[in-house]
Amino acid sequence: MTDTILDNVKKGFFGRLRNAVGHDWTNYVSHPFVQGLGRGDLPEAAFRYYLEQDYLFLIQFARAYALAAYKSEALDDMRQAAASMMSIINHEMQLHVDYCRDWGLTEAGMAALPEAMETVAYTRYVIDVGMRGDLLDLEVALAPCIVGYAEIADRLMAAPSTRLDGNPYRAWLDNYACASYEALAITTIDKINIMAERRGGEARFASLARTFSTATRLEGAFWQMGLDATRR
Amino acid sequence: MTDTILDNVKKGFFGRLRNAVGHDWTNYVSHPFVQGLGRGDLPEAAFRYYLEQDYLFLIQFARAYALAAYKSEALDDMRQAAASMMSIINHEMQLHVDYCRDWGLTEAGMAALPEAMETVAYTRYVIDVGMRGDLLDLEVALAPCIVGYAEIADRLMAAPSTRLDGNPYRAWLDNYACASYEALAITTIDKINIMAERRGGEARFASLARTFSTATRLEGAFWQMGLDATRR
Amino acid sequence: MTDTILDNVKKGFFGRLRNAVGHDWTNYVSHPFVQGLGRGDLPEAAFRYYLEQDYLFLIQFARAYALAAYKSEALDDMRQAAASMMSIINHEMQLHVDYCRDWGLTEAGMAALPEAMETVAYTRYVIDVGMRGDLLDLEVALAPCIVGYAEIADRLMAAPSTRLDGNPYRAWLDNYACASYEALAITTIDKINIMAERRGGEARFASLARTFSTATRLEGAFWQMGLDATRR
Amino acid sequence: MTDTILDNVKKGFFGRLRNAVGHDWTNYVSHPFVQGLGRGDLPEAAFRYYLEQDYLFLIQFARAYALAAYKSEALDDMRQAAASMMSIINHEMQLHVDYCRDWGLTEAGMAALPEAMETVAYTRYVIDVGMRGDLLDLEVALAPCIVGYAEIADRLMAAPSTRLDGNPYRAWLDNYACASYEALAITTIDKINIMAERRGGEARFASLARTFSTATRLEGAFWQMGLDATRR
Repeated sequence: MTDTILDNVKKGFFGRLRNAVGHDWTNYVSHPFVQGLGRGDLPEAAFRYYLEQDYLFLIQFARAYALAAYKSEALDDMRQAAASMMSIINHEMQLHVDYCRDWGLTEAGMAALPEAMETVAYTRYVIDVGMRGDLLDLEVALAPCIVGYAEIADRLMAAPSTRLDGNPYRAWLDNYACASYEALAITTIDKINIMAERRGGEARFASLARTFSTATRLEGAFWQMGLDATRR
Repeated sequence: MTDTILDNVKKGFFGRLRNAVGHDWTNYVSHPFVQGLGRGDLPEAAFRYYLEQDYLFLIQFARAYALAAYKSEALDDMRQAAASMMSIINHEMQLHVDYCRDWGLTEAGMAALPEAMETVAYTRYVIDVGMRGDLLDLEVALAPCIVGYAEIADRLMAAPSTRLDGNPYRAWLDNYACASYEALAITTIDKINIMAERRGGEARFASLARTFSTATRLEGAFWQMGLDATRR
Repeated sequence: MTDTILDNVKKGFFGRLRNAVGHDWTNYVSHPFVQGLGRGDLPEAAFRYYLEQDYLFLIQFARAYALAAYKSEALDDMRQAAASMMSIINHEMQLHVDYCRDWGLTEAGMAALPEAMETVAYTRYVIDVGMRGDLLDLEVALAPCIVGYAEIADRLMAAPSTRLDGNPYRAWLDNYACASYEALAITTIDKINIMAERRGGEARFASLARTFSTATRLEGAFWQMGLDATRR
Repeated sequence: MTDTILDNVKKGFFGRLRNAVGHDWTNYVSHPFVQGLGRGDLPEAAFRYYLEQDYLFLIQFARAYALAAYKSEALDDMRQAAASMMSIINHEMQLHVDYCRDWGLTEAGMAALPEAMETVAYTRYVIDVGMRGDLLDLEVALAPCIVGYAEIADRLMAAPSTRLDGNPYRAWLDNYACASYEALAITTIDKINIMAERRGGEARFASLARTFSTATRLEGAFWQMGLDATRR
């Protein structure tokens, strides 16, 4: 099962987008922050800052899916986007809040924090791409996050340097390496491959690749933000 | 219980909006189409056309709630908007489809129909008001529909001319006269009253009244569309 | 020169969109309102109502071009959309106001009128299509108006039934039959043909044809609104 | 004349927004990058990177004004927003390109650069605030940029440390210290004060202050981006 996602990310239109990014994709999925999660030696301050910002990130991500529901032409697309939004604002945010509690972070505390520039940059970029373009533009901007996390978890699980026993970030790793998250990532890849056919992805490749690439770069910066937090 | 909604529609900021509409509100809530529903003598062709267009209307209404979720600043507002959207695209649309089946209409058949001008006018007006303005503008544009239907049902239930036994539209009446729909309408009124405080409704009254008024007029036209269908 | 526009409307992607509409296109470009303009026997009340609503229409149309500027990815597209918006809110609206003065209509008077349902339906449909989709979706929704008026003027100028001498609507006819308006329409056709290549129009044909068709139908209804005004 | 802008920024609703920011406003208007401009000793690499990103910034800023035109309810607001957009995409961008040529930067070269995270963060934040809220939300998000630059120029012109003779950045200082730019800033302040009355600014103060504050913080980060460029 562990190689499923790595096979899928290379296929079809999505595979070509991922391929077009080059170095920035590697920087994102193999970022020192990520490696620190795998080895279990990421500074706690880095992780804690990431958790806080990820809470604020999820709110904006839910807005992006609300936008996807608004943008949908087909009822099925609308249902899918609505389900994703509900899953974020009910299920995922609750999981996140529960998990953060173990790290000493309260929901009220996180909700009162200012968004880091990195959080603003990535989330508002996604939303603006989606508002400016169509549903395909939006899905492509969202994909590096959803699919990338699955690829990261998969790579970490396969890496010799990864340590599971006693790893303080193990719950995080397990969460994204699990079959249900992989399935979500594969669904996302399939959706982009199908939507690219329906919405003229071929002719729009250069523009979509630019979006995918910028979103990937901003995801990399989100990890870096965590590391930088240790220097403050 | 039956007078609850009629009390509530007169209160607070919402009450002032409703009051500012004048004649068009009466035309909407006491439209001949509505009276025909109460007496049970509305031509079936009128009702059938209304049902078909209402299916297409619900899809756009779900998009309007998706927009409300996107527009929300507070997480609670987002959750509420998302719940409304889910309720429409899962619960209400299913109810509608089930109900339409009794009238010989299939979902595939309705989905393939062109939207009537009246359907386009009302739904896109609401969406554009919401996109152009803020969440309060959007909620005010949505309100004549949600609250008006409760007022209509309440009025019909109290009217001497209303006939329940053997009324072919009884299921429709029961659906909007029920306690759960009244509760939804009252929640909507409360939300507008609260949001008007938070978003400066007082200073914006003229603009909001114009929106409420136009939306009401377009709702009246939606009933008229049903009657006009019998002349084709 | 007079056949230039009729040649152009049949070419390329635009030609296929126009072809896909069928009956509704004929209804729009040969509407009794239009024929009355050509013969000069359109009831004045019909024309006056049309002029009033067209003033309100232009404001929304300017908003649609503002949206096009916001949606543009290429700087050239943005410049073009911005120029169209400026042309509407400065040049065209002024022309319209000057012209309306001859018909006894003041700007303040028109600005205070409620929008007719037909005005709301067409303009908000265009804006919503554009907001939901991308720049190509928006341009396709705008095209029946811009190109259709040129085709109408061209057809009227060639029709044996058209009377220019003593026609009270002659200024209107001259305005849309002139070379500069024809050039604008041809530019619009070219833009759609080019943008269809760049944004995958081929794969999206069914969806774009639906948009073009609905917009055309709503344009036909706008003429009908003028005629209906004489019955009030 | 030099104290005009400093008087104006303290008045009315705008003055209260500026006051609510606290430290971040000072960080923005007295940023080391700004001081380096005044003394003339800002590293050239910092300035060059700033110029490049400012080109990309202006494109997004023009989109924000296009959005303002789309969002306008009053025709006057639409005309004003449209004029601002045209001024940016024609006048300001041309000035910028001419100026950049003296620094060895070509338009084609700048257009091909990726946007820095700081550029993305500020511009997309402004656009999203505007899309999510109403015209007042948007104007408040835009204001720290327009008004702040006038305040910066005014402060620099009055500072003893400022050196004009032989300052390589003198043209930049003169551009923003000139009477016409001051007038634009004062117009912006007035517009916000008026719009706050019309759109319930008082009741919305907390939310608007948060927007103003975040935009200010992201403007400070934009200066920092210039300094950071020297370390690469």
